[in-house]
Amino acid sequence: MNLNEYIRDIVDFPKPGIMYKDITPLLQHPDALKKTLAEFKAGIGELQIDKVVGIESRGFIFASMLAVELHAGFVMVRKANKLPYKTLAETYSLEYGQDQVEIHQDAIKKGDRVLLHDDVLATGGTASAALRLIERLGGEVVQCNFLLELVNLEGRKRLGEKEVYSLLSY
Amino acid sequence: MNLNEYIRDIVDFPKPGIMYKDITPLLQHPDALKKTLAEFKAGIGELQIDKVVGIESRGFIFASMLAVELHAGFVMVRKANKLPYKTLAETYSLEYGQDQVEIHQDAIKKGDRVLLHDDVLATGGTASAALRLIERLGGEVVQCNFLLELVNLEGRKRLGEKEVYSLLSY
Repeated sequence: MNLNEYIRDIVDFPKPGIMYKDITPLLQHPDALKKTLAEFKAGIGELQIDKVVGIESRGFIFASMLAVELHAGFVMVRKANKLPYKTLAETYSLEYGQDQVEIHQDAIKKGDRVLLHDDVLATGGTASAALRLIERLGGEVVQCNFLLELVNLEGRKRLGEKEVYSLLSY
Repeated sequence: MNLNEYIRDIVDFPKPGIMYKDITPLLQHPDALKKTLAEFKAGIGELQIDKVVGIESRGFIFASMLAVELHAGFVMVRKANKLPYKTLAETYSLEYGQDQVEIHQDAIKKGDRVLLHDDVLATGGTASAALRLIERLGGEVVQCNFLLELVNLEGRKRLGEKEVYSLLSY
């Protein structure tokens, strides 16, 4: 089973000139879903993980599956003003302007070993902001994993020395 | 283990007068997460499920775990203009104004047996809109499940004759 066959190209989404990689055919297919999860697990290997952090909102999908599989806690990094308890925030740049992500202050304990997940690694702005949030709380990010990496955008560079594991590269 | 102990009350969120039920302590705790998933599975029992539909964004969490457990496909119902392929849309009322949710037209096949999940059942506006989307595509919703039900808001009434299974009621 080749997972690439379950990724669909959408021309001009979300705007003209962009070729969007649509992961929904993979998600909708039970065997592709299972195989994706198995490949993530193989990439994690024997790493001990206390918390799996998923970035809103598609990052929640495999992050939550992995949390259960690894018997870890699941933590959300969300857009601004969505988390109800005390938060930390980090700002990151967009093509035009900037945006913010937040985490609950009690989501990570000092010394927690953390797996950071999102569905797509593009420029790395959101992932690096999430990484800073985790580190400000004293967590140690032991792997960042992604379903897709858009290699030309060089997002990997913004994650410093962290181990980056992407299942599919374009 | 009493799952209620992992739900945190937040006073005046998102606005004054609201007592918000924060599920993040439950998500962060590996045993509470595992037990929640096991209780959802017990509620599903022997029902055959082809697709698990999660409502953006916290509904993605247990919906995706359940999809893997049930060897079903995972489908997103998202806010307007987020899904890249051909969509169907349904509008629902908010306290002030209205909002819209969408599903991909190829997400559900005619005759698919569907489990619909969200984290909270409040007024039922979003869930009933999601239900209509699934039914317009020919899917049969065999259960709607929720982590929390805010019973006083009577959202259950808007789901008609569907089986509704909520783990925790307030």
